[in-house]
Formats: sequence, structure tokens, C-alpha cells
Amino acid sequence: MPSTLHIQNSLSRQKEEFKPIQEGRVGMYVCGPTVYSDVHLGNIRTFMSFDIMYRYLLHLGYKVRYVRNITDVGHLLDDGEDRIMKATRLEQLEPMEVVQKYTNGFHDMMRVFNNKRPSIEPRATQHIVEQITMVQQIIDNGYGYEKNGSVYFDTLKFAKDTGVYGKLSGRILDDLISESRDNLKNQSEKNHPSDFAIWMKASPEHLQHWPSPWSEGFPGWHLECSAMSTKYLGKTFDIHGGGNDLKFPHHENEVAQNHGACGCDPANYWLHTNMLLMNGAKMSKSVGNVISPEELFSGESHLISKGYSPMVVRFFMLQAHYSSPLDLTDEGLQAGEKGYKRLMEAEKVLQKVAHPGNGAANDLDKEIHALMEGAIDDMNDDFNTPRALGKLFELSSKINGLKDGHLNWTDLTADTWKTLQTTFHAFIYDILGLKDEMATEGGGGELVDGLMELLIEIRQNSRTNKDWTTSDLIRDKMKELNVVLKDGKDGTGWSVG
Amino acid sequence: MPSTLHIQNSLSRQKEEFKPIQEGRVGMYVCGPTVYSDVHLGNIRTFMSFDIMYRYLLHLGYKVRYVRNITDVGHLLDDGEDRIMKATRLEQLEPMEVVQKYTNGFHDMMRVFNNKRPSIEPRATQHIVEQITMVQQIIDNGYGYEKNGSVYFDTLKFAKDTGVYGKLSGRILDDLISESRDNLKNQSEKNHPSDFAIWMKASPEHLQHWPSPWSEGFPGWHLECSAMSTKYLGKTFDIHGGGNDLKFPHHENEVAQNHGACGCDPANYWLHTNMLLMNGAKMSKSVGNVISPEELFSGESHLISKGYSPMVVRFFMLQAHYSSPLDLTDEGLQAGEKGYKRLMEAEKVLQKVAHPGNGAANDLDKEIHALMEGAIDDMNDDFNTPRALGKLFELSSKINGLKDGHLNWTDLTADTWKTLQTTFHAFIYDILGLKDEMATEGGGGELVDGLMELLIEIRQNSRTNKDWTTSDLIRDKMKELNVVLKDGKDGTGWSVG
Repeated sequence: MPSTLHIQNSLSRQKEEFKPIQEGRVGMYVCGPTVYSDVHLGNIRTFMSFDIMYRYLLHLGYKVRYVRNITDVGHLLDDGEDRIMKATRLEQLEPMEVVQKYTNGFHDMMRVFNNKRPSIEPRATQHIVEQITMVQQIIDNGYGYEKNGSVYFDTLKFAKDTGVYGKLSGRILDDLISESRDNLKNQSEKNHPSDFAIWMKASPEHLQHWPSPWSEGFPGWHLECSAMSTKYLGKTFDIHGGGNDLKFPHHENEVAQNHGACGCDPANYWLHTNMLLMNGAKMSKSVGNVISPEELFSGESHLISKGYSPMVVRFFMLQAHYSSPLDLTDEGLQAGEKGYKRLMEAEKVLQKVAHPGNGAANDLDKEIHALMEGAIDDMNDDFNTPRALGKLFELSSKINGLKDGHLNWTDLTADTWKTLQTTFHAFIYDILGLKDEMATEGGGGELVDGLMELLIEIRQNSRTNKDWTTSDLIRDKMKELNVVLKDGKDGTGWSVG
Repeated sequence: MPSTLHIQNSLSRQKEEFKPIQEGRVGMYVCGPTVYSDVHLGNIRTFMSFDIMYRYLLHLGYKVRYVRNITDVGHLLDDGEDRIMKATRLEQLEPMEVVQKYTNGFHDMMRVFNNKRPSIEPRATQHIVEQITMVQQIIDNGYGYEKNGSVYFDTLKFAKDTGVYGKLSGRILDDLISESRDNLKNQSEKNHPSDFAIWMKASPEHLQHWPSPWSEGFPGWHLECSAMSTKYLGKTFDIHGGGNDLKFPHHENEVAQNHGACGCDPANYWLHTNMLLMNGAKMSKSVGNVISPEELFSGESHLISKGYSPMVVRFFMLQAHYSSPLDLTDEGLQAGEKGYKRLMEAEKVLQKVAHPGNGAANDLDKEIHALMEGAIDDMNDDFNTPRALGKLFELSSKINGLKDGHLNWTDLTADTWKTLQTTFHAFIYDILGLKDEMATEGGGGELVDGLMELLIEIRQNSRTNKDWTTSDLIRDKMKELNVVLKDGKDGTGWSVG
């Protein structure tokens, strides 16, 4: 029996079979970036992980409404300062110029890494009305109280009434009350330290504010996701995702707000991605192990020996499961580069070479089917990309073996070869979202192919004619251009690097 | 005395010297797309025209805040149907999915044509609160009245009190009252046919609506631009732009709203771009002369003989003044392609060739300076790109003349050559926003250059050695690949197409 999709649900701490609310459709909400600085590689890993899930759900045939927000207001730093306001002051820009600048940068980076765009990308400031409405609902239901123009969520009353607070993060309210440090600035206004702001009165220097029944102010950070997920996906939807670091307080408070306003859980499945390390430690200026995507591409960093292309980085990241920490190292990236090239070369061979026909369903045939099904089983097992990649590598060996003559074409049917072509292609491009960068790197597609074809012919002629000047000239220039020529029994192939 | 920037102001119907409100800074608002379908070439021309203005203002050293909105609610068709709702029904998507899809497509196309991104790109739905506030201000000032949950702008009272209505479009209110056909659906609610909705009560089937003091509804289309320009640029700012077709009623009503709410003109300079025709007529399905950007690139249309690249199209569009109608024809595009290539080739020569030194400021030197200053004068004269391009072509001839030896290096100073390098480069890339597509088309930059270098050397050797087989092989393949080799006294050059 073919396997079905199972996902690790943070809410139940169990791996559960995925059952959508509405057959054939999936609603998925992922917490997007706060656009106050350049997106860092850890964020990129998070969004890439959810991109894989989105792609795989689409591959399974689901109609997916994928909502990923842009936080452009209200996300406070630990010292109570607004992230966007801080960037505004540092860069001397109007808040929305900061937002535009870093939203553009974020979109560019998502494109570079070939992440699919979400179905809807709502902005927090686009939903002020909806957020004000939700604050009012929470107050009406007895879980919000106003103090000096700000409104707070009453965690204690909510916990007592529902028993839900702490369910997602596993935190105990008593501990929270003693350890809570957020929103220090307004601490004195709260009934309990674990309460959190859902509407904040704007101080005079705060440039982003709107009228509300309570004050000229702005929504609390946690509130936007509750308001936007409800608006676009309904009160309860299928999947809510985000980085591990958002589990508490952001997601815990989201659950509380949705319960407080609508009386139900927002999402049936909560998925959390793990962090990215650099050389074994969290990236930080004090450790000196911070690297930007641009430095990673150009190689201009003491942390790496050379530049790595976006697809190599993507491939490297897919080699770890989304729920495990991933350590970015130069050696890992080098291995990733080799792996990426090996996979793409196998794909090229696979698509170019036709099955000679009249093969039989022998052991090899069965092995290939088992590997293809295995790769799907791996993806069904909580989107296990590293294990699926393992199967694709085994398939690559079979492909190369058939091409080189180590394996026998008669041991598999033409149908199996055709299925392999379709499956392999779907895995590489649709599910894993890789692009053929070697073509881009080699550049200009047809023109380069044409020129190389011509040079290979001239090289062949010059060898036949013992015109060593020309063949040496070609050899030297190929070396200079980092082009590798490979003579095989089907003619000469080439690749870059 | 160097010229200063003058622009044709639709408000005064005069060409006026441009004087910003705040020295060194410019606030510019341009009406962006309604994202309910793919952006068409006429829109692209409009946004490209404003891109040139933005680029030129930046080139002059202004700090520009360029705001271009996204209309994602409230833009009604002539029959009173909402454009986005219509697309929703046709495509079976949620309104914000429609918005996201076509916003993505719009951004892609802006990037393809190398238009710079605006400083802020606000969305109408992002400013519901601000729009409700503005409706209230208009009501409070006596220029708005409510009927059955919708609010209308009282054009008659406004015209009598201020004498402003019709100032921009030159329309007479009496004529408007008799001819007005918009918002037919709610006609009966209006006091006068020329009045227009600033808030509309949502009918039950309308999916986009927000609570307001008057009804659960949505803002009138004209209102968003008034609210957003005021928010990001202040009550009165420097430049407001848009397509000619927006002058009435959209811009006229914007002026009325700003006066009605704030008591002042929104912008000091109003700029309007003209339309794009295809083979002499407005593009329309009934005429059969509609062509999409994609068809223009691929050549898959009976209206053109081949495909034209985005930069060729951009160049073609810049050959007309923004305020004149532009007729898209196959012949025009072919000429544009030649012109674009000529300009880019001159730029390549200019940047590669060094002045041999010791020239004097003779006639040629003066001519080159006059042409450079002339091109700036042209841009200062209401952004006259066709005339500036004329000067750049004359400069191209000088550049080629010096390279070929028809003109004498001793007739100009090394400093002039250096200034020409800087100026020409700034014009092509910064001001006109062209890209070197020949490099892209030729693909892979260095690799293609390297392969071509090698082939040119082999070709040279084969000719010397009378190895006609090889030289013929190269000749045939170059023809097949559409590569043109040009033998000159400085060696052999090449280009694609």
C-alpha cells in the first residue's frame, strides 16, 4: 500500500497522518519576515523548508492556499523598541521606505533561491481594521483589558478558563509569570508579567499609528498573524508554520488570541523548523561567524574557501531535515556542490538517453521502482529531504551505470525508464525546487551549446589530421575557461567547473 | 548658462521651471496598476515614462521619494462591477489571490523592462483607516453626503465654493452633469450625476469590505490616491503623474478630494503620459491588433515579423516623447533594434579604447562638448528622450570615427574623452535605464567571450594555413548561430544577430 503524508505536529508532539479539513485543499500559514533589515541565511533556511512543503503538497495534487505575511509594523525588540522604527532612525527613511527596501531585498533573495511565491502575501499594516476588530472581540469575550490606551491579553484568566495557554510551547504559566521579560517598557501596566500587548498606544516619537477605540496606536506583533490567518484561511485551517524561535511567545500567543476571539484553535498542524549554525555556533558578531548570502555567493568571507551558487546552497540545506539544526561549513558546502552537480548530470543523461527497448522487468527494474517509491515514502515521512536525496543518488548511479554499460539495458523495461525520467525530473525541479544552474553558469544556453559543438568537431578533426597546434590551443583555452571535456563512446561531452 | 529642468504642467497647461518645495528633495506620486489582469504594453509605456523622470531626477542629484500605488480594491468598471471581483469570479480565486498573482506579474514585467522600483509601493487595502478618516474630513467640511450607507462627493457645492472643479481636466461642470455616466448603478443615490462615490456600501456578493461609520463597505477608487499621497508625501507635494486617460475623472476627483479634506492642491506639477497605439489604432480585440509583452518578445504574433527583446522595446519607446502618442509597428521595432545595437556598440568602443593623449581642444573637442551639453538640455526640456537620443547617436558617430581613423585623436583632449566616457555611460545605464542585452543574449558573458576568442583565433590560423575545411566549418556554424563576425584593422569583432 502506498504511504500517505505524515507530519510532525508541534501541538501534539506526535507524527500524525495529514488529514486536511476540506478534501483536496490545504490552507497553510507561515510567519514571514519583519522587513527591517536584510534577510539572513537562517530565515532563508526557514522559508526554503516551507517552500519544500508547499511544493510537495502541490505535487501530491492538493490545491494549496499558502499565506506568508510581511511584518511591517509593531514587532518590538527586547528593549521595547520597534524594529522598523529603529531602522528608520538609523537609515533616515520614512517607515514605509524601510519596509519597501527590505521587502524588495527579501523578494529578490526568495527568487535567487527559487522559492515559489505564496498565494497571498498580506502585510500587517494592510489589516489594521481587522486587527482592531479582533482586539474588540477579545475584550468582549473577557480576555483583554485596557490600560492607558493600550490593550493587554489576560493570560491568567485565559489559562484558567481554557487550560490552553502553554499547550503549544509546553510552558507552564507559573514559570512564565516569573520569567517573562517581554514588553518591559509597559510592564507596570500589565496585570501579570505573562500578559502581552494586543494594541499599543503610540508614544509621540512613534511614526506608525492609527486611530482606534483605545488610542492612536498600533497593533501588537502577535496579533497580525491571528487576524490575517483568520481572514484568508478561516478560523481553523490546516497548517501553521514558522521557525522554532517563534514557538514561544509568538505562536503560543497567537493560539491564545484566536481562542480568545473565536473560541477555537487556529491550526490543526503546527510545524517548526530548526536553526542554521555556522561552524557549529549560532551566527553572531561577537563569535565572528556571520556570513551573508551575498558573501556566500561571492566567496568574500574568511569563513569559506570559495563562492557557492544559490542552488548549491539550496542543495546543501536540503541535505538536512527541516527539524534538525543545520551546520553551515565550508566542507559541507563543497560536498553539497559535488552532490548537486552529480544529481544534475544524472538528470541530463536521463533525459538525453533513450531506452533501446525490449528490456524485461528483472531485478534492476524492481530496484529502480523501489527507489522511486522509497523517495516518495521519504517525503511522505514528514518531508524527509535528506533521505529522499539518498534515493535519488542511488538512482543516479543506476542511470550512469546504464549509460556506461556497467548495467544492462535489457534488465529494465522501456516503461520503467520513462517513469524514471518523469519521476526524477519532478523530484529535482518541482519538489526540491532546484534549477539547472550549470546551464546558466555555462550561460546563453543555445549559443554556448552551439559554440561547444563546433569546437568539439574542430578538435576531433585536428586530432584526425594530427594538427596538434589547434588541438593544443583548444585544450589550453578549455582549461583557462574551466570547461571539462569528457570523451565517451557516444562522443564528447562537456561541463563547466 | 546651463539649462534647468522644465516640465509641462497639466495644471497650468504651461512648460514651467521645476522648483521643488524642499530644496534638493522631490516627492512624486504616480498612479499604479489595478491588479486584476496582466499588465499591458500601454501601461508599461506609462510606467517606463515615469521611470525615466525618476531616473533623471536622481541623476540631477535630487533625493526623490517616489510613491507608486497598487490598486487592489474598489476600481469599478463602467457597468459598476468591481474589476478585482470580476477576476475573482472568472478565475475562482479569493480576491487577495488575484491581487497577489497580478502584482507578481506586474513586478516581473517592471523588472524585465528595467524600471527602477519606487521608494514606496502602497496598496489601497493597506490604507482603509486613512481613507475612512479622509471621508470623514470631507463630510465634516461639507463636501460629502451619505445615502444608504454610501458616501458621495458633492461636486456642485465644491465647484461653487472653490471654483477648482474642472481646473485640471478643463471640463466644465455643466457639461459633466449632463454627460456623466460613471457609477450608473448608484446613480439614483447621487444628488448630481457628476458626484462620485468616496465610500461604497458593499452588496452581499462583494467579498472585500470593512466596517465604517456609514456601512460595511469599501472606499471609492479615486480616494485611495488622495489618502496615500497625503500620507507619504504630505498635503502638497511636487509631482503627480499618470496616464492621460486618468486625467478625468480620476485625477480631477483626486484634486477635489484633497481640497475637500485638506483645503489645498495635492501637487504642484501634474504630468500626463500619452497612449500607445498598434499599427495606428488603439489596441482592441475587435480591431485584432492586441499584442502582449510576451508575444512581442517571442515574435509569436501575426502583427510582427520576429521577436524583439525588452531593451529593444524600451529603446523603441524612448524614441518618442512621453506626451506624444506612440505607434508600435514592426518597422519601428526593427529600426529600434538597429538603433539600440548601434548605441551599445558605441558604448563598448568608448569604454574599451583609451585616448592616446596629447590632443588639443579643437573643433571636434568643442562639438563633442556641445553634444553632451545638448543631450542634458534635451532632458531638461521636459524629459525629451528622442532629442537626447539624437545627440547620443551623433556622439556614437564621433566615437566610431575616432576608432576607425576618420576623425583625428589629436583634435580632442584626453579629458574630453574621459568626460565623454562618463557622460555616455550615465546616459545609457542611469538615465535611459538600458541594459547591455547583447552580453545577456550572447549569454554567459565570460564563457561566450572566451569561446569566441578561441574560434576567431582558430579561424585566423586556418586562413593563414589555407585550411578551408575548418574556416568553412566556422563560417557555416556562425551563420547557423546568428553570430556576425566583423574583420577590422584592430582584429575581428563579433556580435549576435
